[in-house]
Amino acid sequence: MNNFEFKNPTKIIFGKDTIEQLKNEIPADAKVLLLYGGGSIKKNGIYDQVKTALANVDVNEFGGIPANPEYATLMDALKVIKDENITYLLAVGGGSVIDGTKFLSAAAVFEGDTPWDILTKNVRTEKGMPFGTVLTLPATGSEMNSGAVITREETKEKLAMGGPGLFPVFSILDPQVITSIPERQLANGLTDAFTHVLEQYMTYPIGALLQDRFAESILQTLVEVAPTVLKDPTNYQAASNFMWSCTMALNGLIQKGVPGDWAIHMMGHELTALFGIDHARTLAVITPSHYKYNFEAKKEKLAQYGERVWNITEGSTDDKAYAAIEKTTAFFHELGIDTKLSDYTKDYEGTAEEVAKRFKTRGWKLGERQALMPEDAEKIVKMAY
Amino acid sequence: MNNFEFKNPTKIIFGKDTIEQLKNEIPADAKVLLLYGGGSIKKNGIYDQVKTALANVDVNEFGGIPANPEYATLMDALKVIKDENITYLLAVGGGSVIDGTKFLSAAAVFEGDTPWDILTKNVRTEKGMPFGTVLTLPATGSEMNSGAVITREETKEKLAMGGPGLFPVFSILDPQVITSIPERQLANGLTDAFTHVLEQYMTYPIGALLQDRFAESILQTLVEVAPTVLKDPTNYQAASNFMWSCTMALNGLIQKGVPGDWAIHMMGHELTALFGIDHARTLAVITPSHYKYNFEAKKEKLAQYGERVWNITEGSTDDKAYAAIEKTTAFFHELGIDTKLSDYTKDYEGTAEEVAKRFKTRGWKLGERQALMPEDAEKIVKMAY
Repeated sequence: MNNFEFKNPTKIIFGKDTIEQLKNEIPADAKVLLLYGGGSIKKNGIYDQVKTALANVDVNEFGGIPANPEYATLMDALKVIKDENITYLLAVGGGSVIDGTKFLSAAAVFEGDTPWDILTKNVRTEKGMPFGTVLTLPATGSEMNSGAVITREETKEKLAMGGPGLFPVFSILDPQVITSIPERQLANGLTDAFTHVLEQYMTYPIGALLQDRFAESILQTLVEVAPTVLKDPTNYQAASNFMWSCTMALNGLIQKGVPGDWAIHMMGHELTALFGIDHARTLAVITPSHYKYNFEAKKEKLAQYGERVWNITEGSTDDKAYAAIEKTTAFFHELGIDTKLSDYTKDYEGTAEEVAKRFKTRGWKLGERQALMPEDAEKIVKMAY
Repeated sequence: MNNFEFKNPTKIIFGKDTIEQLKNEIPADAKVLLLYGGGSIKKNGIYDQVKTALANVDVNEFGGIPANPEYATLMDALKVIKDENITYLLAVGGGSVIDGTKFLSAAAVFEGDTPWDILTKNVRTEKGMPFGTVLTLPATGSEMNSGAVITREETKEKLAMGGPGLFPVFSILDPQVITSIPERQLANGLTDAFTHVLEQYMTYPIGALLQDRFAESILQTLVEVAPTVLKDPTNYQAASNFMWSCTMALNGLIQKGVPGDWAIHMMGHELTALFGIDHARTLAVITPSHYKYNFEAKKEKLAQYGERVWNITEGSTDDKAYAAIEKTTAFFHELGIDTKLSDYTKDYEGTAEEVAKRFKTRGWKLGERQALMPEDAEKIVKMAY
């Protein structure tokens, strides 16, 4: 096990009818900016629940934060924060709204030349403007971590940011919110959380027995509840396990003391930037090819995963590892998620070369050993056509 | 799954040679009281590591905090805190030293008549004096939770306390510390952590699939590493998994959204108070009898535990549940832990009646349904003779 530090101060308020508890979490004298996305919260009743809970608080609003939160839109929100002397941010949405709010939390107190520097100069935010979240889409884990990914359409870039000052002060997780989420987005959420776990787990054995088992626990639970979540999102038991699994998949716990891969995300981000493919679907496209390409380096853990998550008991380590990749691909298909780039675009020719070119420009080496060069990424993306 | 709140702000610093990081965690202008137990830290080098790390900080000392931290001793420490205008506490020890430090953190800022009220009037500490810990004995999880148990010899009582203000600011966990722990105490630590998980897990099914699997993950890991921990505490892989499992066993995570039992602890505490038996060993005495006595209420979870932790695949639910109790008892025996009260004292006659009398006086009902009356406790303790 590697040495590690772990601190996660976010207060989680989890369960049925918990949105009303907002009134206990936001200081009465706060000047709040309520941030949300495309407006679905106005149709599904969540907006009304939030407004009711905050009836006695001074609340401004900023809607329209898009999936893959866009820098230009966030700069408009930043202007509102400055103009209105906002002191507290409240994200009501999924990962995109929460990630955008994290950027704003950092940007609101940033003293450099331009907030763009936060993204391009790896500025770690030690203390941001305080913010809370009401999660409306289980998937990214952003509600209980301190990282965010921001997109800039102008340059077709997706860039990561974060810092210990960017944990939400609180996050309200009411599993009932999933009843109004379209099946497509539920499938995305399941895939996203599943892949988050894989990125932190599917590396090489390092003797972190408990972290492995926690990772496997989340994967097993997602596999167990996925069919019910898709078929009947009103099933509270499935919804609550789905939601808590997504949070635990990326709140820092399972990554402590172990190597992390994240190459799937790095390649996937480029596919979103280039073609606008849903984030989760890009992960499902890259995952099988990535594991096949890096088979020798990952086969021990792949076999362990096969045994423990998919109950594969027959065959050699290699056999189990291959079967585990096949099971993973089949799982994505069962969720209705395609796993080839050509399923999403006809213009895939040249993508692998473009991704490699971008990684080369940025000097990126990927994977748990930082041993994957741009030319490896090129081969992996090509395998995923 | 039940509704829950979860917030755990303790910063964990985990790994080899991490004690030196103390210097980054305690404010340079703090006036520190270093608290420890019987003095083993002066023999095993931990005291020297701590003093070196704090060379530039104003440090007072208070040693001699006994196992089952004693109220009278702690009142002496409180006098030092007041007399020396201490601003920061540092516990260097196991659960007893850390629990004692939590009481002092609360007592140092308590404004009531007497600190005894904190224990007898269920005072929740919202904000205590800040404190950190250097863990020297993995077992109780006190290094990452906000609860404590304090003993008063005068009245032969063990009483619980806690509150959100009593999380350690930081805890340093260097698994190498276990190399100097006697086998007896390592066995106690394994038993204590194992039983902590059981208390939060062995109730009735409530559909908290992820919490169940996390609990099972900790149990499986303790079972896996226990023989190596006892045979060769210099094995870092076993030591690190043991230490992290003990912390995760009682840092709040696995108890969220599920019922808790804790009757084993309540009965066990009385055996320590009456006979001075090691805390962990009292748990091993009560556990098998408690599960046999409450078999009908717990058999579904007992069977699940048997299947997943002990790989019991044959037989009915009842068969698996019984076999799981037997496996648990055998595990304690393999650790060198006796599981009958008569193994520890010849004066056990009348104990069950005395425990029942005490519970009756306090009006206690125990267990996850608060359905165990004093007369049930009497029968369980008698079964454990």
